Amino acid sequence: MRVLGVDPGLTRCGVGVVDGGAGRALELIDVGVITTEAALPLEQRLLIVSNELTAWIDRHQPDAIAVERVFSQHNVSTVMGTAQAAAVALLAAAQAGIPVALHTPTEVKAAVSGSGRANKAQVGTMVARLLRLDAPPKPADAADALALAICHLWRGPAQDRLQAAVARQAATR
Amino acid sequence: MRVLGVDPGLTRCGVGVVDGGAGRALELIDVGVITTEAALPLEQRLLIVSNELTAWIDRHQPDAIAVERVFSQHNVSTVMGTAQAAAVALLAAAQAGIPVALHTPTEVKAAVSGSGRANKAQVGTMVARLLRLDAPPKPADAADALALAICHLWRGPAQDRLQAAVARQAATR
Repeated sequence: MRVLGVDPGLTRCGVGVVDGGAGRALELIDVGVITTEAALPLEQRLLIVSNELTAWIDRHQPDAIAVERVFSQHNVSTVMGTAQAAAVALLAAAQAGIPVALHTPTEVKAAVSGSGRANKAQVGTMVARLLRLDAPPKPADAADALALAICHLWRGPAQDRLQAAVARQAATR
Repeated sequence: MRVLGVDPGLTRCGVGVVDGGAGRALELIDVGVITTEAALPLEQRLLIVSNELTAWIDRHQPDAIAVERVFSQHNVSTVMGTAQAAAVALLAAAQAGIPVALHTPTEVKAAVSGSGRANKAQVGTMVARLLRLDAPPKPADAADALALAICHLWRGPAQDRLQAAVARQAATR
């Protein structure tokens, strides 16, 4: 299974592609950051993020796309741009007909490091270890995108099994 | 000049098309509301809004698109969805190569009613009067979209003249 992780942002949008699955080692396929100039009109920034994400989807044909869930409580000054970049990512996934999932930062940190309170450095270190890289991917947005993809590879199947078990329980009642 | 006004929202996204220009009466071309079910996944709701807005753009070929500017200070519970619907509208405009402008609610209210503090009913009444309708358009999202289009028809040229004057001043210094 191949997952494209997206750490949404207008100034820097992290993107990372990871292969993995039951009984398989994780494999880094590609990682990068989409950047847009703050001086550009908002609609042009959204268009650049949209075009680049669509190119990533076309190039790597992921089976699923994992996007960080944005909360309105945090960083009020930047949350609008983050929410709008996330919207563009969700739309690109829906247009391509690829399943999309949202994961919270806490879920992502817990998945890769065992702690929902891990800091940026710990996440970067664990991503490098899990993908057998010499150093944490830079910038942090790129590492976060890979962590999202890994989180989805590990949580997705568990969530599916949980939902199947709940459905079986309900069916036998 | 033809303007498509968009009052962004995921549950209800108001859309209104108005023709107008210097020395011309305003003319209502079309008005409606794009709705999506709250139970649908977010990416499907964004896709519906995107597809419908693109269809409105194709059908009416506006010269400009006016979108309400979303502020993160207001309505924290719904602001994320509104910001994401606005992002989809801005992206649709950029993809179609149509100039887009953001207007604040205060600017829109002041443009159609003379007061930036006008309430929904006053805006609806003034929109009906300006477009020579028997009654205010329903729901309020539809009236707001028409008010945005009217605001842009009236403010856009004034803003252009202002910018040209500033540019002339700078050139003669």
